[in-house]
Amino acid sequence: MKELLKLNDDPRVHGVYLHLPPAALTNRVLNSLKPEKDVDGISDWNTGKLVRGPLSTGFVPPLASAVLHLLENQEDSLEGKTVLLVGGESPFRLVLQCLIERRGMVTAKSHWDSKNAVVLLDAGNVDIPPNWGRLGVVMICFGSLVLSSLHSLFSFIVRQNVVRSCTRWLQEQQYKPWRLRSLKLQPLTPVPSDLQISRAQTAKPVNHLAEEIGLLPEELEVYGRSKAKVRLSLLERLNSQPDGKYVLVAGVTPTPLGEGKSTVTIGLVQALSAHLNLNSFACLRQPSQGPTFGIKGGAAGGGYAQVIPMEEFNLHLTGDIHAITAANNLVAAAIDARMLHEATQSDKALFSRLVPSVNGVRRFSPIQISRLRRLGIIKSDPSSLSPEEVNSFVRLDLDPEKITWHRVVDTNDRFLRKITIGQASTEKGLTRETGFDIAVASEIMAILALADSMEDMKSRLGRMVVGTSRSGTPVTAEDLGVSGALAVLMKDAIKPTLMQTLEGTPVFVHAGPFANIAHGNSSVLADKLALKLVGEDGFVVTEAGFGADIGMEKFFNIKCRASGLRPNAVVLVATIRALKMHGGGPSVSAGAPLPTEYISENLNLVSGGCQSNLKKQIQNAQQFGVPVVVAINVFRTDTPAEIDLVCQLAKECGAFDAVPCHHWMQGGRGAVELAQAVKEATSKPSYFQFLYDLQMPIVEKIRTIAKRIYGADDIDVSAEAQRKIDYYHEQGYSTLPICMAKTHLSLSHLPERKGAPTGFVLPIRDVRASVGAGFIYPLVGTMSTMPGLPTRACFYDIDIDPITEEISGLF
Amino acid sequence: MKELLKLNDDPRVHGVYLHLPPAALTNRVLNSLKPEKDVDGISDWNTGKLVRGPLSTGFVPPLASAVLHLLENQEDSLEGKTVLLVGGESPFRLVLQCLIERRGMVTAKSHWDSKNAVVLLDAGNVDIPPNWGRLGVVMICFGSLVLSSLHSLFSFIVRQNVVRSCTRWLQEQQYKPWRLRSLKLQPLTPVPSDLQISRAQTAKPVNHLAEEIGLLPEELEVYGRSKAKVRLSLLERLNSQPDGKYVLVAGVTPTPLGEGKSTVTIGLVQALSAHLNLNSFACLRQPSQGPTFGIKGGAAGGGYAQVIPMEEFNLHLTGDIHAITAANNLVAAAIDARMLHEATQSDKALFSRLVPSVNGVRRFSPIQISRLRRLGIIKSDPSSLSPEEVNSFVRLDLDPEKITWHRVVDTNDRFLRKITIGQASTEKGLTRETGFDIAVASEIMAILALADSMEDMKSRLGRMVVGTSRSGTPVTAEDLGVSGALAVLMKDAIKPTLMQTLEGTPVFVHAGPFANIAHGNSSVLADKLALKLVGEDGFVVTEAGFGADIGMEKFFNIKCRASGLRPNAVVLVATIRALKMHGGGPSVSAGAPLPTEYISENLNLVSGGCQSNLKKQIQNAQQFGVPVVVAINVFRTDTPAEIDLVCQLAKECGAFDAVPCHHWMQGGRGAVELAQAVKEATSKPSYFQFLYDLQMPIVEKIRTIAKRIYGADDIDVSAEAQRKIDYYHEQGYSTLPICMAKTHLSLSHLPERKGAPTGFVLPIRDVRASVGAGFIYPLVGTMSTMPGLPTRACFYDIDIDPITEEISGLF
Repeated sequence: MKELLKLNDDPRVHGVYLHLPPAALTNRVLNSLKPEKDVDGISDWNTGKLVRGPLSTGFVPPLASAVLHLLENQEDSLEGKTVLLVGGESPFRLVLQCLIERRGMVTAKSHWDSKNAVVLLDAGNVDIPPNWGRLGVVMICFGSLVLSSLHSLFSFIVRQNVVRSCTRWLQEQQYKPWRLRSLKLQPLTPVPSDLQISRAQTAKPVNHLAEEIGLLPEELEVYGRSKAKVRLSLLERLNSQPDGKYVLVAGVTPTPLGEGKSTVTIGLVQALSAHLNLNSFACLRQPSQGPTFGIKGGAAGGGYAQVIPMEEFNLHLTGDIHAITAANNLVAAAIDARMLHEATQSDKALFSRLVPSVNGVRRFSPIQISRLRRLGIIKSDPSSLSPEEVNSFVRLDLDPEKITWHRVVDTNDRFLRKITIGQASTEKGLTRETGFDIAVASEIMAILALADSMEDMKSRLGRMVVGTSRSGTPVTAEDLGVSGALAVLMKDAIKPTLMQTLEGTPVFVHAGPFANIAHGNSSVLADKLALKLVGEDGFVVTEAGFGADIGMEKFFNIKCRASGLRPNAVVLVATIRALKMHGGGPSVSAGAPLPTEYISENLNLVSGGCQSNLKKQIQNAQQFGVPVVVAINVFRTDTPAEIDLVCQLAKECGAFDAVPCHHWMQGGRGAVELAQAVKEATSKPSYFQFLYDLQMPIVEKIRTIAKRIYGADDIDVSAEAQRKIDYYHEQGYSTLPICMAKTHLSLSHLPERKGAPTGFVLPIRDVRASVGAGFIYPLVGTMSTMPGLPTRACFYDIDIDPITEEISGLF
Repeated sequence: MKELLKLNDDPRVHGVYLHLPPAALTNRVLNSLKPEKDVDGISDWNTGKLVRGPLSTGFVPPLASAVLHLLENQEDSLEGKTVLLVGGESPFRLVLQCLIERRGMVTAKSHWDSKNAVVLLDAGNVDIPPNWGRLGVVMICFGSLVLSSLHSLFSFIVRQNVVRSCTRWLQEQQYKPWRLRSLKLQPLTPVPSDLQISRAQTAKPVNHLAEEIGLLPEELEVYGRSKAKVRLSLLERLNSQPDGKYVLVAGVTPTPLGEGKSTVTIGLVQALSAHLNLNSFACLRQPSQGPTFGIKGGAAGGGYAQVIPMEEFNLHLTGDIHAITAANNLVAAAIDARMLHEATQSDKALFSRLVPSVNGVRRFSPIQISRLRRLGIIKSDPSSLSPEEVNSFVRLDLDPEKITWHRVVDTNDRFLRKITIGQASTEKGLTRETGFDIAVASEIMAILALADSMEDMKSRLGRMVVGTSRSGTPVTAEDLGVSGALAVLMKDAIKPTLMQTLEGTPVFVHAGPFANIAHGNSSVLADKLALKLVGEDGFVVTEAGFGADIGMEKFFNIKCRASGLRPNAVVLVATIRALKMHGGGPSVSAGAPLPTEYISENLNLVSGGCQSNLKKQIQNAQQFGVPVVVAINVFRTDTPAEIDLVCQLAKECGAFDAVPCHHWMQGGRGAVELAQAVKEATSKPSYFQFLYDLQMPIVEKIRTIAKRIYGADDIDVSAEAQRKIDYYHEQGYSTLPICMAKTHLSLSHLPERKGAPTGFVLPIRDVRASVGAGFIYPLVGTMSTMPGLPTRACFYDIDIDPITEEISGLF
């Protein structure tokens, strides 16, 4: 009774469903519950008749049906509310316990969607943990209210009904076979513009697509009609579901025009799902908005292998990059503000502001406790700190010359590459030189791509090193007190975005880190979700940036290490154009017309390219023990003899298979041969292994990549690089994997050396670390992290019709 | 027949429904249509039997039912497709024509959602305009295929059925009475934290809320569960619906702590809708994310008058501010890139890049044609320009000293207030001093708030002046070629975001321009949509930033001028605290404890505040002819005698009514008295008038505001300000309204002068213009457009539980 009264006043309890035998329904009980909290009226368990109830007259379903009812039908009025179901004892509890253990809720491991949340507390425990307020139907059985007679009276009927409803509910949680309705394509000749093709097709409403691939409605957060975020709770629901096959699309060393890895990725899933009727998912990187308005235009694939609607894909999408920008720049603002505050305040003033007295009490926040721990101060009472401890706590003492953190914008703004900040008089002369990068170059983007849970992301964000103190200690985002806020800013960004291909097959778009200073692969989480969704016989196709020597190597050594996932096959994309270039053809550059070698048959050049670059990249994949399928992305000017030659030579060089692809002109139908080859390749066992052991010294890891992947004779480490390596070793970062920042236009560090260069020594100019993301990146050249705008940028042609809202000029 | 074949090859036509009398169904006709384009098979009109059809056997509904069917049931397969309905003549056409004219489609005025789009073309006209590709079911009757006998045979059945289906469809388009289900509140004492209150309540799924208030599903773009964007097509659907009552919430001159206008706004709608059962909408500003992590914390109201979920309201929301940031910074990048390109290229090189030869043809883009027109060059052939014309076309010749455009971030980053950019060697020494503002200070935010359609927004974006050329000509965003891209970036931001209050009543959150350098009011579009939705007897409550001398004055003179809307009442919010301050109480500052005068009864001070500031602000509202209801936002320490005194004096000073409000502690129930007073006040006629005529000289407009609203004796215009005024006059900007940038802490320009100061001359230090937004803003002091972070910023306490995803530390 006391508990009941307590519930009346608990704002987190929105309703109570009281189910008791008649003997227990004394007036005292009947009147104890506030009418507002009475869900269905207090009912007589025996007849199911309503004893008292403001909402309805007549029959109230028996207890177990009510549970079912609550779970399934009451979403309108009870959704997300905390409803206590009072009464019932062990059988009921046991069944629920079993149910709950299946979902892992007892250990509160997951975020559950409100609709299906079921929480069981032990008898007598009526304290609802504060963070359960958002959970849905909370059922609490507590013994103190339950009369002893209750047990036997209830047991049979309750057991039957609860078991039945729980079974049904558990069924809903199982893996669901796909019922994918693919969209028909009628490719036109000549192939219209990407935007025209995208617009001529109508995307399925994304919630329909989600239903087709077995997502539960509560796992989906729809953003408009064509995009939706998918909740990570899916990973737990399908925890016991075996993963599908994991396929990486990489490429030969490309020409500056790109060889079409994205279109192959999309064409391949279109073929698998829409033509071979196999479940498949493409996992793609989100493009930066900067180049969309600069030189490059859109990045949603091309021709009849695209993600649609392409304008949604290329613009804000679901705001992930904006969230990264906000988080990145909050760190930057915190750095400079902190330096100003430290420069202008005494230790005491800083301490009294950082640990303010609230109603006469000073308390450390959890984030400050973490910093104290790192400083080796195991105290929790602010007044107990010695002056030295106060000093080391309040002073990050950042060295302005050694701040590595840059601000970011998702705009091609070259004038922000190098700037001086703090020139207003309010900043008291604390000017310093720094710069902006494009948003996707932020370490936070790399973290988003590598995190495998909210918890993991949050701790990586806290570990990010923003600079070093004057005494040489790394200063982290957590030291700045900002790591919780960063996780809050990134809470939606961590969920992958679901979209679809032109043929209506599912796509995840998630994260798009740079492929030089970062690892250039889409997110671990999207791959993991997709691998569960496609089921054991399905396929997840993901793409690595740049050529295989960079994107694929990082995929294996960095991304697969972070995720624990093991790839089943590599698709190596080649174009006749790129192979001719590697075979000794004249140089290719963007904007200039292609030399005739590239538009008429030249078997010699093709052969040269196959024997050099293609062969080396096939071997590179094989060093990781994964079978390779070569996909020739066919252009109109390629001749049958050229294509046949590549197929033949690729197989001679060790490829499992080699096939031409016509997805750009034909959509999935044009990539059916590739899909079949991939299916075949993944049915074979794969013997995946990493290239290097993390315990190797940093220099040895770099040397291994340079020699075995690039074909270098050795590496040449500059003094500056060596100094940094020693420092990272000292700081305990030496077991991080290596993320090479090298040109993608050659296997070597010299862009003009095509084919498979040998006899070179790879210079390591400098070495940096992304400690939060978890890799060390040696710089092999100068990497631009902020593009510029050309004289006539894309934006000149981009427009929107204010009446129809049709966008033009994206391509 | 020719037309039919043409349709076969038109990629925009996804299906054809061919309905002809048997005589016309020759084999030639039957075979002319590609099977893929045949929607239901070619049917015999007379029997309804299927003549040929890949999809189904048996009965095909007669023509009109088919129309209905297409419109209503086929959304899954036909949604968004272009379907031509071939056949039928005048009666059918006339009915449809009538239907279409009701929707204005013939003149293609609106964006229609795919599901309900119906388009009728005249006989013989089979050219589908390219921008109709996204419309839904397009029915085209063209006479050439229709046999003369068709007319009489069809007329009866067609008329009946089509009329019936059209009637039903038209009914769907009508205004729908609300069926609002309010959420129950059980306020606790003491009042828990804002976040606790917000979390204890469960928001209705936003699509349920939308349905309750009569929105059509196709007018909604849901973002997750609790937020949705509302399409502007609503304005057209409810075009003939009379507006509801329009209520502005303004305040007396506030203390630095704020007097609770937002909570009053929210409490008032909670009272109107949840307690008086009257339709109402609150229209609020979107808060900047910067202060959320800085000093201020959240801004979703407070106590039991809040927008929920407050964490969604305070974080990214639906990305509008991020879109503004992206658009603003694209302009900035375009400015500096353009200066670099102009500095390093000849006229000829610039021209050949700006107007590139594509397949041997040079063509101006529409945006370039506009620039040519502004330059007075009426030519469209690039080769016909004289060298002088080329020079003036390619050279914006921006004066680096006179660029007024700043970059923005939505972060409190004080070190960006003044910076030097372009210091990397790639920028060739073209360094210049500039700065960043907080994102909401962008002119694009002011434009979003004032635009009344996509078209209007786009043209305002194009008109924005970013600086002047060396010869003194204003340079606009359109001159930079970027205005189309800006509109594309802002295409979703223009749609208001629907959320709800703690009691489940609807709220629009849209735009949040600065209240000093901009007009500080939420968007015109949100108000317009809300006024239609609430219906004739409903209420729209919107809030103006700062005190009534600033926010309200700008609401009337700037926002109401832009919108054409006329307010019915002003709610003037006062606190006993603020009135005591104006009555001579000691100064109040954030962070410091309140002096005892403010927490114990002091009728003298209260009376003094009423007779000075309150009285003047009531009179200010009355100058616009609008009745004033004074709302006393009651605090725990206020005494009944103090409250009674304010009520009495406010009425003596001319208020229509004055009532105490307890919404913070009690939610809507605590604001019922206010709601009744507002209802009463709006039932009286209002005689709204502007304070000044736009044709008055700039100086006179400023003087009018200073004397009549602030109580100044006169204004003192600096030489610099006068120079600018003359320049703006010269450029034709002198008919813009005035947006004063003055402190909000006093009616005068001196923050310490409380009450209703007199005997002062208002100094006009400088004058600037937001030409795109459409106002001139005189600077009466130094306005900070970039806040900083305090030593212990809010972010120290902000965190997220990685398991439950519960956020803590927002308040």
